[in-house]
Amino acid sequence: MSVSVVAGVDLGGTNTKLGLVTNAGKLIWRGRLTTARYEHPEQFADAVADQLQQAASEHSVELTGIGVGAPNGNFFDGTIAFAPNLRWKGSIPLAALLHQRLNRPVRLTNDAKAAALGEKYFGDARGLNDFMVITLGTGLGSGIVSGGRLVYGHDGFAGELGHITIRYDSNRTCGCGRRGCLETYVSNGGLMKTYYEILQELPADRQKQFAARDASAIHDYASGGFAPARQAFDAMGALLGEGLAVAVHLLGPARIYITGGLSLAAAFFLSAIQKAMEAHLLPVFQGKIPVQLSQLPPQDIAVLGAASLIWFPAD
Amino acid sequence: MSVSVVAGVDLGGTNTKLGLVTNAGKLIWRGRLTTARYEHPEQFADAVADQLQQAASEHSVELTGIGVGAPNGNFFDGTIAFAPNLRWKGSIPLAALLHQRLNRPVRLTNDAKAAALGEKYFGDARGLNDFMVITLGTGLGSGIVSGGRLVYGHDGFAGELGHITIRYDSNRTCGCGRRGCLETYVSNGGLMKTYYEILQELPADRQKQFAARDASAIHDYASGGFAPARQAFDAMGALLGEGLAVAVHLLGPARIYITGGLSLAAAFFLSAIQKAMEAHLLPVFQGKIPVQLSQLPPQDIAVLGAASLIWFPAD
Repeated sequence: MSVSVVAGVDLGGTNTKLGLVTNAGKLIWRGRLTTARYEHPEQFADAVADQLQQAASEHSVELTGIGVGAPNGNFFDGTIAFAPNLRWKGSIPLAALLHQRLNRPVRLTNDAKAAALGEKYFGDARGLNDFMVITLGTGLGSGIVSGGRLVYGHDGFAGELGHITIRYDSNRTCGCGRRGCLETYVSNGGLMKTYYEILQELPADRQKQFAARDASAIHDYASGGFAPARQAFDAMGALLGEGLAVAVHLLGPARIYITGGLSLAAAFFLSAIQKAMEAHLLPVFQGKIPVQLSQLPPQDIAVLGAASLIWFPAD
Repeated sequence: MSVSVVAGVDLGGTNTKLGLVTNAGKLIWRGRLTTARYEHPEQFADAVADQLQQAASEHSVELTGIGVGAPNGNFFDGTIAFAPNLRWKGSIPLAALLHQRLNRPVRLTNDAKAAALGEKYFGDARGLNDFMVITLGTGLGSGIVSGGRLVYGHDGFAGELGHITIRYDSNRTCGCGRRGCLETYVSNGGLMKTYYEILQELPADRQKQFAARDASAIHDYASGGFAPARQAFDAMGALLGEGLAVAVHLLGPARIYITGGLSLAAAFFLSAIQKAMEAHLLPVFQGKIPVQLSQLPPQDIAVLGAASLIWFPAD
């Protein structure tokens, strides 16, 4: 009898990561698709199904189900609802599209919740009932586990730490249409804005010399010791710390994990997060809640967590 | 065979309310004690036990357990931990003290969580899995129900909406030692501060004429149409709405209930809450989450909820 595996799908605006995952959390195969290449979700579903079937066949394993993590993914109805950074508009019934093609159970949740499940079942959070996972990259996502279960809220949209207002007098506009959302400070784009604000205090030639095309360039400058880059990371960490302090008062997690592409630069802002968070906590929470880098690779965590939707369907 | 009842105890800094509660949430007897009169918690426990035994005997009912809601009450160990507005210092093992005297199961939680349980089992929230109860009075408490269960957090202290920082540049100091906590704006004391800030813009004689000894006096002025009193309630509601918007993004409740002594003045700030909350919500949450007055009387809600700790021990 062949080994059973579950497919994990981590759908992103640019790329989609695929994996075949055993129930011990071993990734026996990894795949990748360019999400933005597919004009229609049906074409995307075709491509995902083809890759998964081929991989399962090549590895002689039995595909028992598909778990998907996707931006604005809704666990309750298996759809992706109006995701601003996907080219497909409206509500996409992705779970149904994959089920039609693969005839296996499909469960779907949002990307940050998938990351939280990855931590819960295959990461350092095993055994913890109350923790949070923060995904940092294009946006700021959060997956909250409370009392051993993912927090979905009344209609599946809970866990939007990126969209709490952190500055009420802010002039930073957010993709959601409002101002002062935490994500406008804590994300690739937020870091860029802060960096350029700081850079403006330098002479024009220095500004030109240290122009940064993306967050990764700022990371490089920070590694090289360039003070404005270090300051930008410090400022981002401090605002995330303030946002986390808010979440801690409501949820009382034992631990907070950071993941996502921007977490590769965590050495430059992890201590700023912890310091600002502690400064805004009730004494009863102080000094007890570590903010740490997830030990699961950022490229795997949501694939693993998506697969756990099928392996551990209780959540 | 006699009817079974559970005692509900709602311990407050000034008064303690007692009740005998049937499993249908009927209060067949109500009692009251002046908390502040008891120098030692042992004396207080004696008085509670005496009243409960006498009431049970007079009503010929069987006391099957005791549930307690108390400020800083910890569900996990049955203690009251360093409550700033109680005269008893340190950690008080109140559950143990009552068990010694009454020889019945005792369960204890904090006062806002008890109010949330009152809503869940005996109020409008029956059947809702995701909602919040806000208690307004001396302080701002919150009891959060997520996925059908109270949110306790890792060590029982979750649900502290009153102590999220809502203004980072605030000069209002909080009883917790920090600045800008939501409670410094939204509570009896917060309302008073705001009212006096507004009042300062009036001539000295008008300030004297409209001096307010407590929140209840401001309520009276608002009822009489006095603009500064109305403005103070508006400002308080707006800040509570901002705080609730934060909570909504993390927790996605279906509904939010307001209770506590200050909720008697809710007519003067309920619409300000809803308006400010909506302005700070992601579109996906807008127009869906009513903020409403609890229909359970503020003096009964935590007594009922405390009793439900024994009647419905799963939570």
